[in-house]
Amino acid sequence: MLMTEIILKKKNQQILTKEEIEFFVNGYAKGNIPDYQASALLMAIVINGLNDTETAQLTKAMMHSGEIIDLSKIKGIKSDKHSTGGVGDKTSLVLGPMVAACGVRIAKMSGRGLGHTGGTLDKLESIPGFKIERTRQQFINQVNKIGFSIIGQSANLVPADKKMYALRDVTGTVQSIPLIASSIMSKKLATGADTILLDVKYGSGAFYADPKDATRLAKAMVNIGKAMKKDTRAIITSMDQPLGEAIGNALEVIEAINTLSGKGPKDLLELCLKAGAIMLRQAKICKTEQEARLLLQKNITNGKALKVFKDMVIAQEGDGSYIDNPKKFSIAKNVIPVKIKQGGYIKSIDTLKLGIAAMKLGAGRAKKEDKIDPAAGIMIYKKVGDLIKPNDVVVYLHTNTAKYEDIIKEVVAAFELSSSKVVPQPLILNTIE
Amino acid sequence: MLMTEIILKKKNQQILTKEEIEFFVNGYAKGNIPDYQASALLMAIVINGLNDTETAQLTKAMMHSGEIIDLSKIKGIKSDKHSTGGVGDKTSLVLGPMVAACGVRIAKMSGRGLGHTGGTLDKLESIPGFKIERTRQQFINQVNKIGFSIIGQSANLVPADKKMYALRDVTGTVQSIPLIASSIMSKKLATGADTILLDVKYGSGAFYADPKDATRLAKAMVNIGKAMKKDTRAIITSMDQPLGEAIGNALEVIEAINTLSGKGPKDLLELCLKAGAIMLRQAKICKTEQEARLLLQKNITNGKALKVFKDMVIAQEGDGSYIDNPKKFSIAKNVIPVKIKQGGYIKSIDTLKLGIAAMKLGAGRAKKEDKIDPAAGIMIYKKVGDLIKPNDVVVYLHTNTAKYEDIIKEVVAAFELSSSKVVPQPLILNTIE
Repeated sequence: MLMTEIILKKKNQQILTKEEIEFFVNGYAKGNIPDYQASALLMAIVINGLNDTETAQLTKAMMHSGEIIDLSKIKGIKSDKHSTGGVGDKTSLVLGPMVAACGVRIAKMSGRGLGHTGGTLDKLESIPGFKIERTRQQFINQVNKIGFSIIGQSANLVPADKKMYALRDVTGTVQSIPLIASSIMSKKLATGADTILLDVKYGSGAFYADPKDATRLAKAMVNIGKAMKKDTRAIITSMDQPLGEAIGNALEVIEAINTLSGKGPKDLLELCLKAGAIMLRQAKICKTEQEARLLLQKNITNGKALKVFKDMVIAQEGDGSYIDNPKKFSIAKNVIPVKIKQGGYIKSIDTLKLGIAAMKLGAGRAKKEDKIDPAAGIMIYKKVGDLIKPNDVVVYLHTNTAKYEDIIKEVVAAFELSSSKVVPQPLILNTIE
Repeated sequence: MLMTEIILKKKNQQILTKEEIEFFVNGYAKGNIPDYQASALLMAIVINGLNDTETAQLTKAMMHSGEIIDLSKIKGIKSDKHSTGGVGDKTSLVLGPMVAACGVRIAKMSGRGLGHTGGTLDKLESIPGFKIERTRQQFINQVNKIGFSIIGQSANLVPADKKMYALRDVTGTVQSIPLIASSIMSKKLATGADTILLDVKYGSGAFYADPKDATRLAKAMVNIGKAMKKDTRAIITSMDQPLGEAIGNALEVIEAINTLSGKGPKDLLELCLKAGAIMLRQAKICKTEQEARLLLQKNITNGKALKVFKDMVIAQEGDGSYIDNPKKFSIAKNVIPVKIKQGGYIKSIDTLKLGIAAMKLGAGRAKKEDKIDPAAGIMIYKKVGDLIKPNDVVVYLHTNTAKYEDIIKEVVAAFELSSSKVVPQPLILNTIE
């Protein structure tokens, strides 16, 4: 088989065979196919597309390029949930304990990622002592006992994707529904859960700004799941404003604890109830959404969900007293109120701008080597649709850096006001089941 | 400027600016832009295209990546003719002396190329002693004196194209009208002639099988010439059968000598008269095609054209007695008649198959390092439209290798017969002036 001929086929809008896709993925992962041939094929795929069968075959080939996690020693239905990435998205920290308290098994592996703000692993590491490295046996035992664990992703998980993603990043080939879908799904499928729920974000800073594109991406991923005989469903949610009130690592953990205690922001709770209800139906624990929402609510009220979170933290060597008393989390030296001069209705919040501002405050990484400051971040108390008066405080910056004057300006610029009333977009646009 | 953003623009079907095109060409030629980014952009160009302005800017940027030949010391109109490549295409050896005898100055630089059969340089080197390396001064003096020289291309001619072509060859990005057009035209423009005539081939083994595509390529090149204010014209000619009767290096030189002596195959002569008439009008030596054809014919009849060829050979240290007496060229050990069992009209001849067969007999190179056997090749005495009887000899193989049984089969397979009369396609389809 010749790589040039595979490239030519896709250039000419022909359909690639399973063998050709495997030849490419394996050859590229092993270093037998050079970057310049891979990038030419990737560009042809970006422009000419892949059909559902090709996308599923690409996913399967990538998935088999590395380790496949065996969760069969965990009793019950193992469920996974994946978000395509959002600023202030602490859903996993809330949703995991909520559904685990209802009997779903959450054995989650997270990648570290290089987003503007920290990933789930960074957030958990803001709890003193918390360890993201566990042996496979510890991981399985913990999920069997507590129902919930989040650990660092195996280094050998889908190496083909790791290499391909790095190449796509520098060759203008990131935005492609089949490539994004197979990249995400290959990792989800390799981590061995029985059911997968995808939270596909649209809007500012998401893969796609347009909800139609996000819906196409969600459908592509659900189709891959179906082709691989995994119960895969998706929700399409808005990132046109940050989720909840907190952006930043410890700040988001505190918000997660509050939400699990019944005192969290409404939008975050609603997303977790909606997503949790789907997961409970996927795990066949509940039959209807109504029934599932009641069960999830009950386990917040009776404290079971929060207990799962605390048990998980302790099992992974974290200090459980922080969960009982979130005031123990250290606060940044500088907590700076940011005011907006004019009054009006908040029309939109540029989520990406806030994410970048939070990164600059210390909450994220610009480069892989950068250290994260767990206390840094942004608290947002005014959301889209809110009426503000002139000089109202809209957010508080939390930072240990002294240079924040420019960041204040960037944060102010993220808010767009309107003199007439604004109805915010629904948080949850659609579900694909 | 960021290469990734240039790639993204072309991926999104946007028009690149002059600065972006120069950034790419210069960066790639200098090694600042890696192959994997270049191949991604090239694939985006292949699929999404370049408009006329972008194509002209790409050509100009490539042309300026290396040396620009200065022919200003040569008196008179310097004309160049370029063929996109054909099996048995010895036009340059015949046309050059013909037009030079009429007063056009031909200062031609040829690339060695890696075709199935030898290039013009390889053909000339089958004349004992012939040298393709000349100093710039020798080259200019010779053209001023004799009107004709063909030498090896400067090593520093359009280095950007050299690098880009090697990459395109292994990344499925060869077939693209703007890329082929700018590759050819950048080299033609860098060699400094006043007028350019392009012979764009279509059919078996050409860049494009379809005459419509060849016409589009010809128009793209003529447009580049116009944008650069050079008189550029084109003829579209068929490669659906070999040109003339000879394929192979010495065999083609002999055929060129015969044609310059008024004893050559009709198709080759006709192409040279047609192309020569355009060149004489480009050089403003003649006003009408009719006038030009008469002048060209006259200079064959009176021996002037052949004398130019012989003078050129002697000036470049070749043995002129071979031109007077072509029987001096050494003949291959084996001259094998190839018969076709059934009779009928020849419907088509697969030119590419014959070219590959000639290469295997020793007339071409499979790898850059391969040595060419000047005596090897194929003589074709039956052409499309001819009626043959069962077991008629259609071609003779000339070779010094003993392994030719398989080649005989391949050559037979190149001929398609028909029981009904066949009218061959016209050799010259169209001219673009």
